[in-house]
Amino acid sequence: MTNGRPASLPHIVVIGAGFGGLTFCQKFPVGRARITLIDRQNHHLFQPLLYQVATAGLSAVDIAQPIRAIFGNRPDFEVVMAEVTGLDLVARRVVHARGELTYDYLVVAAGGMTSYFGHPEWEQFAPGLKTLDDALAIRRRVLLSFERAETEPDPAKRDAAMTIVVIGGGPTGVELAGTFAELTRTVLNRDFDHIDPSKARVILLEGSPRVLAAYPPELSASAQRQLEHLGVEVRTATRVEAISAGQVVAGGQTLRSDNIVWSAGVAAVPLARQLGMESDRAGRVKVRPDLSVPGHPEVFAIGDLISLVDAHGVTVPGIAPGAIQAGAFVAKLIDRELGGARPAGGEREPFVYLDKGNMATIGRSAAVAEIGRFKFSGFPAWIAWLGVHLLFLIGFRNKLSVLLQWTYSYFTYRRGARVISGTAGPPAHSS
Amino acid sequence: MTNGRPASLPHIVVIGAGFGGLTFCQKFPVGRARITLIDRQNHHLFQPLLYQVATAGLSAVDIAQPIRAIFGNRPDFEVVMAEVTGLDLVARRVVHARGELTYDYLVVAAGGMTSYFGHPEWEQFAPGLKTLDDALAIRRRVLLSFERAETEPDPAKRDAAMTIVVIGGGPTGVELAGTFAELTRTVLNRDFDHIDPSKARVILLEGSPRVLAAYPPELSASAQRQLEHLGVEVRTATRVEAISAGQVVAGGQTLRSDNIVWSAGVAAVPLARQLGMESDRAGRVKVRPDLSVPGHPEVFAIGDLISLVDAHGVTVPGIAPGAIQAGAFVAKLIDRELGGARPAGGEREPFVYLDKGNMATIGRSAAVAEIGRFKFSGFPAWIAWLGVHLLFLIGFRNKLSVLLQWTYSYFTYRRGARVISGTAGPPAHSS
Repeated sequence: MTNGRPASLPHIVVIGAGFGGLTFCQKFPVGRARITLIDRQNHHLFQPLLYQVATAGLSAVDIAQPIRAIFGNRPDFEVVMAEVTGLDLVARRVVHARGELTYDYLVVAAGGMTSYFGHPEWEQFAPGLKTLDDALAIRRRVLLSFERAETEPDPAKRDAAMTIVVIGGGPTGVELAGTFAELTRTVLNRDFDHIDPSKARVILLEGSPRVLAAYPPELSASAQRQLEHLGVEVRTATRVEAISAGQVVAGGQTLRSDNIVWSAGVAAVPLARQLGMESDRAGRVKVRPDLSVPGHPEVFAIGDLISLVDAHGVTVPGIAPGAIQAGAFVAKLIDRELGGARPAGGEREPFVYLDKGNMATIGRSAAVAEIGRFKFSGFPAWIAWLGVHLLFLIGFRNKLSVLLQWTYSYFTYRRGARVISGTAGPPAHSS
Repeated sequence: MTNGRPASLPHIVVIGAGFGGLTFCQKFPVGRARITLIDRQNHHLFQPLLYQVATAGLSAVDIAQPIRAIFGNRPDFEVVMAEVTGLDLVARRVVHARGELTYDYLVVAAGGMTSYFGHPEWEQFAPGLKTLDDALAIRRRVLLSFERAETEPDPAKRDAAMTIVVIGGGPTGVELAGTFAELTRTVLNRDFDHIDPSKARVILLEGSPRVLAAYPPELSASAQRQLEHLGVEVRTATRVEAISAGQVVAGGQTLRSDNIVWSAGVAAVPLARQLGMESDRAGRVKVRPDLSVPGHPEVFAIGDLISLVDAHGVTVPGIAPGAIQAGAFVAKLIDRELGGARPAGGEREPFVYLDKGNMATIGRSAAVAEIGRFKFSGFPAWIAWLGVHLLFLIGFRNKLSVLLQWTYSYFTYRRGARVISGTAGPPAHSS
């Protein structure tokens, strides 16, 4: 299957069309090799804004691009939509649901998945937020619970329907909690007659002493203040002890809620195990300093899948810039090797992560940001967040039009984003 | 549950937030009565464009509006999202999944559903197109089948994956077939390397001698020509004999296709039976000339639910204008009665349907249209179609912005509308 071209072009297989895989493909020079990009979904997802879909602020189409639309016309480039089921590093083969691919180089960028710290049974009661399906399910659940509350005579059930619990105070949890609070107080409050959505409870649970624990303490404090200003109940140093249908036990208290969202842990996808490497407790594989797999210099792993302390002692974080920089690094490395370049001393250069800062939004017009030595918050941080995320957009060819679209959606499509398909389900804990 | 208002305002319950129910609510003067609008979905759907969502041309949010966003702030107006499970016309009670409503007037506008002419077992193999879920499922199925075809070595399976069969040559079937043909020939053709989507087969089956059988013969002929120009195989006078997984037997031939769509029949929803009235074979209730239910002058039925030959001998068609005009008529009638007006002779005025014409699009820039005595086709008809449908938009407050949005979506969001959530499923006949 070489499209009639000479088989002399090397073949690179890239698993995963997230930030890592896509950046690799975009940075790798056209025509230098044949590339096959394989993903089990048909689209690239702009994950930093996934929480917006979950909170009915944006629609799925605002943050996703079909992979074929990004690369459709590129020569020597194929897209396969299938789940990778096996890797044979000796035979240099990738096995997927509908066939096999042999490679000269392999880039594994399959990403992460929600992790429940050894309690997989919690997943059915507290879904995570990693895919469009996750976001749409959360949105649907929350909107339906308010519909139920509107006609619910029992006050305890009504309160449970109007309570949202977000577990995990990292950036995703902070963003979810702040935006749910805004949703109830500024959007839904106008829609109902028998309930007052502005009285809905939004509770954020975080096990460590502060939210945004990976950020500087001042920003954690600022984020908590801004969240509380929006009406979120922030409970730090509060570990979850048990989760069951409609109920969370945390910090010795029982919280009843029909809307429990888990954003407390990410682990590597199971495919990582097929690399046969040492990995951490979250299944993230410990790659070599050049991001390759020990014993297989033609195989690379990048993004949320890996665990690495770089050459300067910096732990590469499991966020978009980590994947993006790694994808660019591997593209350059393979390009140079194919060009015949041999690095001095025979050793490849190690990967170095450039920490460009951290940001998290809290609601519609506030955020915290740390760029280099500058830490700031509030509206200027939010503007910076917006600017940086626009820069990082991949595949959205016309960034100006996307900005306009987000603006339009943000302020007017609120309505559209509240459309849920399907009919009203049975009362209470329907999934 | 009267919101603290005096119980003296009459209570009107409206079942269904489609064109009929919504027009009733919009035309009925604010404050004249308390209105409860109940629907099992949370949104109003602009059904004429549902086929666009099914063919990945528009997104769900382009054609749906949350009901609460349309009426949220209207005084004496409640929205209930629940399925109506029973009607007690004697006690004047509507029973729904989470409670009951008593009414002084009842307007049943619950609409239609896909009908399989006594073959309900065909539904699992040939889904219909009535709801957003239907449209999204069709879209997903078609896009996934092309993904499968891309890596399918067996030519017979590949052909089946690249064949789309539309059953039913009415306006919906014509619009679906024409747009699927365009989708494959002008959008998908650029996305794949191993298959040529422009060679996909789109087959339209119609049991009567011509497509658009309810339209003038010249327009039927024009529609067929335009469809064939787009590459659709039109088979009239071809009845479906059997449907099974991936296969349709029609006109003595067996067609293999992974994408079979049914748009050949609409019947009244089961709720219609609870009105206890005479109905036709499709379950449509035979209302009195004033659209009321025999023996219950305070109960009205409108829209796809009813079967009526009006006072001028015109059969009220099951299309949007039929529901819209009926909704407006009933609103005026109830308003006058509440105002104390008694019609001369004690008999209410009969409903008269004003046939403003018929239209159907064929692809992106062609259509057929009949308005009064004028029949025209091609691009001018398409422009007229666009203008009329914009006029009929309900609840989309800013029609100019919707026009811009449709234009934007139509030409650029093609990409966005091709995003499907979920992962690649197992090969072949997955549902």
